[in-house]
Amino acid sequence: MMPPRGFAKAEFLSRTTAAQAMMAEAGIDALLLTTAQEVYYFTGFLTRFWESPSRPWFLIVPASGAPIAVIPAIGAALMGQTWVSDIRTWASPQPKDEGVSLLQDALAEVVPKGGAIGVPSGAESHLRMPLADFERLKAGLPSLSVQGDAGIIAALRMIKSEAEIEKIAHACAIAGRAFARVPEIAPASMALSAIFRQFQALCLDEGADWVPYLAGAGEQGGYGDVISPAHDRALTPGDVLMLDTGLVWDGYFCDFNRNWAYGAASGDVADTHAALVDATQAGFEAAKPGATAADLYHAMAKVVGDTDAGRLGHGLGLSLTEWPSLIPTDQTELKPGMVLTLEPAKAIGAKLMVHEENIVITQEGATMLSAASVSQIPVIA
Amino acid sequence: MMPPRGFAKAEFLSRTTAAQAMMAEAGIDALLLTTAQEVYYFTGFLTRFWESPSRPWFLIVPASGAPIAVIPAIGAALMGQTWVSDIRTWASPQPKDEGVSLLQDALAEVVPKGGAIGVPSGAESHLRMPLADFERLKAGLPSLSVQGDAGIIAALRMIKSEAEIEKIAHACAIAGRAFARVPEIAPASMALSAIFRQFQALCLDEGADWVPYLAGAGEQGGYGDVISPAHDRALTPGDVLMLDTGLVWDGYFCDFNRNWAYGAASGDVADTHAALVDATQAGFEAAKPGATAADLYHAMAKVVGDTDAGRLGHGLGLSLTEWPSLIPTDQTELKPGMVLTLEPAKAIGAKLMVHEENIVITQEGATMLSAASVSQIPVIA
Repeated sequence: MMPPRGFAKAEFLSRTTAAQAMMAEAGIDALLLTTAQEVYYFTGFLTRFWESPSRPWFLIVPASGAPIAVIPAIGAALMGQTWVSDIRTWASPQPKDEGVSLLQDALAEVVPKGGAIGVPSGAESHLRMPLADFERLKAGLPSLSVQGDAGIIAALRMIKSEAEIEKIAHACAIAGRAFARVPEIAPASMALSAIFRQFQALCLDEGADWVPYLAGAGEQGGYGDVISPAHDRALTPGDVLMLDTGLVWDGYFCDFNRNWAYGAASGDVADTHAALVDATQAGFEAAKPGATAADLYHAMAKVVGDTDAGRLGHGLGLSLTEWPSLIPTDQTELKPGMVLTLEPAKAIGAKLMVHEENIVITQEGATMLSAASVSQIPVIA
Repeated sequence: MMPPRGFAKAEFLSRTTAAQAMMAEAGIDALLLTTAQEVYYFTGFLTRFWESPSRPWFLIVPASGAPIAVIPAIGAALMGQTWVSDIRTWASPQPKDEGVSLLQDALAEVVPKGGAIGVPSGAESHLRMPLADFERLKAGLPSLSVQGDAGIIAALRMIKSEAEIEKIAHACAIAGRAFARVPEIAPASMALSAIFRQFQALCLDEGADWVPYLAGAGEQGGYGDVISPAHDRALTPGDVLMLDTGLVWDGYFCDFNRNWAYGAASGDVADTHAALVDATQAGFEAAKPGATAADLYHAMAKVVGDTDAGRLGHGLGLSLTEWPSLIPTDQTELKPGMVLTLEPAKAIGAKLMVHEENIVITQEGATMLSAASVSQIPVIA
C-alpha cells in the first residue's frame, strides 16, 4: 500500500517549533539552511532541480513563526504550494549578487542586533553556496555572529516521525521486490554493467521515484571494494554478485544490499554470507533504546571480527547516509524513531563481502524495514 | 558506437599542467578540491559513493607534479587504479578528525611558508566538507593564506577536450533514442508519475549509466513550472507532456528535453513549439567562437521575447549545469570545445513551454549534439 505523499502541515509546524526550542536553548536567533535535505525537512519543497549547482537556495528558520524562503524565482510556484508563505525571490542566475543581498536583508530583519545565526557546520554537513558569497554575506552583517547550528539539524533529523518511517519502509519494500527479481535480469554471461542498468530499471518498475545510488560488484570469491563502477565483464561461475541500492520514494532513501553466488557458493563464500547474516541478527538484537551506536558496532564485530570497513552501519533518511555512525567511538544513544543500517563486512582473504539491512528503533527494541535474509546465499545457476 | 571509458593518462597530465600554469600566474601554490566533479576531472576517480555525505574527499593540485589524494581508506583501492600515486588515507568516519590533520600535513608539505591555497569559491561552486572542519584546517595553517581559485577550475572545465565531447555526445545519443521511444511508454491515460518512471527505465535500457536528473510536466496547454515532481494524474487530450533529462554516461551529462501534445496540439501550443524550435535555431546560428554567452541569449530572446526564465541556456559536462549562463550579463566569450544548452522558454498565458538542445562550439561555428527537432510538435493520440 502506497503511503500518502508529502506531510501534514502539523508535521512541518512541529519540526519547526522543535528546532526553535533547541535554538532558544543554544542562543541561536535564526538557522540558515542551504541543502535539499534541510529545505525539504522544514518546508516539503521537493524537486530534483537541486542537481543543478547554478542556483543557491536559502531557508531561514527564525526564532518564532514559519520559515522564510529566499530562493531563485524559478522555484516560486513550487514553494508556493508548501506551507511557507514568506517567499522572497530573485532572478537567478545573477552571479554578481546571487541572492546574497536579499538573504542579508531577510536575516537582518529577523535577527536582532548582536544576535546569532546558526549554520550547520558539523559532521556530514556542508554549505551549498559559493564560499565567496558566504564571506560576503557575513561581511554584510557585521552586527550579527555566524556560528554552527549546535547540532540541532542532526539531532532533529536523526529521530524520524511515523510518516517518515512509513516512507522509508515503502522505499525498502520497493527495493526488496526489485532484489527478489534479480535472478530474472542477471543470468550468468551478462556483464555487470548491464546488470546495474537493468537493476535500476527494476527499482523504477517496482515504484522507485528515482535511483540516486547503486553500488555493487561481481568478482570471483568476494569483491575488492564496494564503491567501484560496474565493469563490462560477463559474470561466470564463482563470481559473487552484490547490489547495494539507495533508491528514493518521496524524498526518502532505503539503503541495503543483497549477494548472490554464480554457479555455486564456495565454502568460504557460503560461510562468510552466513556469518554476515548472523552479525546483522546480533546487531538487530542489540538495537534498542538506551543502547549506543557503538554497542551495535561491537555486537556485530563480535561475530565478524574487526575490519577496515570503517563502520558497520549508519543512519539514513533524507540522505543515503546520516548520523549516527556504528563505530566504536560514536556514543550516540539510540532512541525510538532512529532508522539505521546494519552493515557488517567480513574479509575473505584479500577480498570482502558485505551484508546490509535497514531497521527502525522502537519503544521496546527494533523492527526490520528490509525483509530479513536467510543465512544461505542465493545461487544463480 | 560506444566511446572508450575513462581518459588517457596524457589527458589528466595536460589538465594538471594547464591548471598549474594558471596557478603560477595567479600566485596560487596549491588547489584544494573537494567535489566529485573536481576530483574526477584531475584523477579519473569515478564512483557514485559521493551520494553519501558522511565522508569528505580531498585532492591537492600542487604547483608541480601529480595531484595528491587525501581520502577515506574505503576509496584507496579505486583511487589506486588512477594515475595518482600519492594517496593518503584515514579510517573514516572519524568525526573528531575527519581527515583534517592529514590534509593539513599534506598542504604544509607542498605549500611554502607564506604561500596561498586556492579553493573554488565563485559562481556555481561549493565546498564539500563541514564548515567547522574547514575553519579548523585554516587555523592549523597560520602561515598559509586560503583564498579563491581565481576562476581556474571554471575556466578549465568550460572548454571540453575531444574525449569529453565524445562522452557528452554519447549521452545525448542515448537520450535521443529514449525520447524517440516515448510514444511506446506514454499513452494517454497513463499517469505522469508512471511516465517518469518508465522514461528513466528507457534511458537505462538505451545505455545510460544512471539518470540523476529528470524533470518535466504534463498539463493542459503548457506547464506551470519545470521543476515540480511528477503528479499522479493520467494525461488526457489537451495536455502537453515535457520530459527533460540529465542522464550520465561515464560521468558526463546530457541535458535536453522534448515536448508532446496529447490528442492534438492547440494553435497556441503548436505555434509556441514552432517558435521555440526557431529560437534554438537562431541560437545555434549565433553560436561561434568570438560571440558571447549574452549574444546567444539575445539571438533567442529576439524570437521568443524576454521571459522570467532567468536564462536561456548554460554550459554542461561533469555537472548538469555549468558556466557560462546564457543571460544578458554574461559576457563569456565562446571558444571551441564549449558545450552548451540552448533552452528558450516562451509564455502561453499563465503557462509556459521550454525547448532545449545541446551544442558544441567548433572552430567555425557549432555542431548539434542532440538531434535537431522539427517545428511541428509530435502528437500522442
